[in-house]
Amino acid sequence: METYNGLINNLIDELASLPGIGSKSAQRLAFHLIALPQSKVEHLANTMIKARSEVRYCEQCCNLTDADVCPVCANPKRDHRTIMVVENPRDLAAYEKTGRYEGVYHVLHGAISPMLGIGPGDIRLKELMTRLEGDVDEVIIATNSSLEGETTAMYISKLVKPTGIKVTRIASGVPVGGDLEYIDEVTLLRALEGRTEL
Amino acid sequence: METYNGLINNLIDELASLPGIGSKSAQRLAFHLIALPQSKVEHLANTMIKARSEVRYCEQCCNLTDADVCPVCANPKRDHRTIMVVENPRDLAAYEKTGRYEGVYHVLHGAISPMLGIGPGDIRLKELMTRLEGDVDEVIIATNSSLEGETTAMYISKLVKPTGIKVTRIASGVPVGGDLEYIDEVTLLRALEGRTEL
Repeated sequence: METYNGLINNLIDELASLPGIGSKSAQRLAFHLIALPQSKVEHLANTMIKARSEVRYCEQCCNLTDADVCPVCANPKRDHRTIMVVENPRDLAAYEKTGRYEGVYHVLHGAISPMLGIGPGDIRLKELMTRLEGDVDEVIIATNSSLEGETTAMYISKLVKPTGIKVTRIASGVPVGGDLEYIDEVTLLRALEGRTEL
Repeated sequence: METYNGLINNLIDELASLPGIGSKSAQRLAFHLIALPQSKVEHLANTMIKARSEVRYCEQCCNLTDADVCPVCANPKRDHRTIMVVENPRDLAAYEKTGRYEGVYHVLHGAISPMLGIGPGDIRLKELMTRLEGDVDEVIIATNSSLEGETTAMYISKLVKPTGIKVTRIASGVPVGGDLEYIDEVTLLRALEGRTEL
């Protein structure tokens, strides 16, 4: 007593296995794809395959790239002596969108999480330490403000400090435009601790 | 000053052109796809291409199918003398999920919308009228409760009535579990008009 035949169900199931796509969205997407011109679907499918097979990690910062070095590392106008450490490429993209950070990055591809069994050896820390053997002035730790992010930040700061390189952590506090009334206690306390003189 | 190279941007752009996927979700999906095993990405891509090329309209009800006739029409246990008219395959899927409707369907693939320039000739009405030449007891109009859906319902009822076949319209009213206080006036009036004796 199926509503659809195998092919449609297969497509819906595969789409629903992607992150952020529930069964309703998967159905909508599937029907949309089936209604698109054949050439458009083939184009999208081939873009996916090509991106998957050709995109790799940047040799310097582990950002995603289809060349040896990502556009940020390849840019001579960036300050290569300042390295911002982020958990994943989405975080890098978020800082790039501000358009104001002029240094380079290092993408860890994860955070230390004893709960999930992710140790220091499972993220791109060794690559970071190798970079620090070169000319580096500052390491800005911009891991998330979660338990895993904080653990990772602490771990990195302990590793970097003996090298004499300056280590900083991005500020925690009330988001701009945020209404104090709706903000959790931990954030409020962090904002208080991190207050600056006016 | 790009963050990513062409291939990654292409993938993000193509994903963002799909319905219900904004630029943030597109980025997340792209990074997810790039991190998947190559074989999984190829499988998804091929499923998309295969579904697009092989899925077509059911010869009887215009539902989507990869055979000549969809599973609902092919099921001899269904009541083929009762036809529910819906706007699109998603609506059909919604009624199938109830598991209680035993008739068959007719999928219009749209609704009459003078605003969007969609006339009666642009939806699958001719196919419906052809079916009514056979043995049909009732046409249940289950187009949406929007302006376009209502217009389409009125149009179909005018077409079907002269044939002597019973035409009905699904009820409008307060959704089950709905809180009266949050329901719009039009729906409240519809619910009042459609009240039934207890």
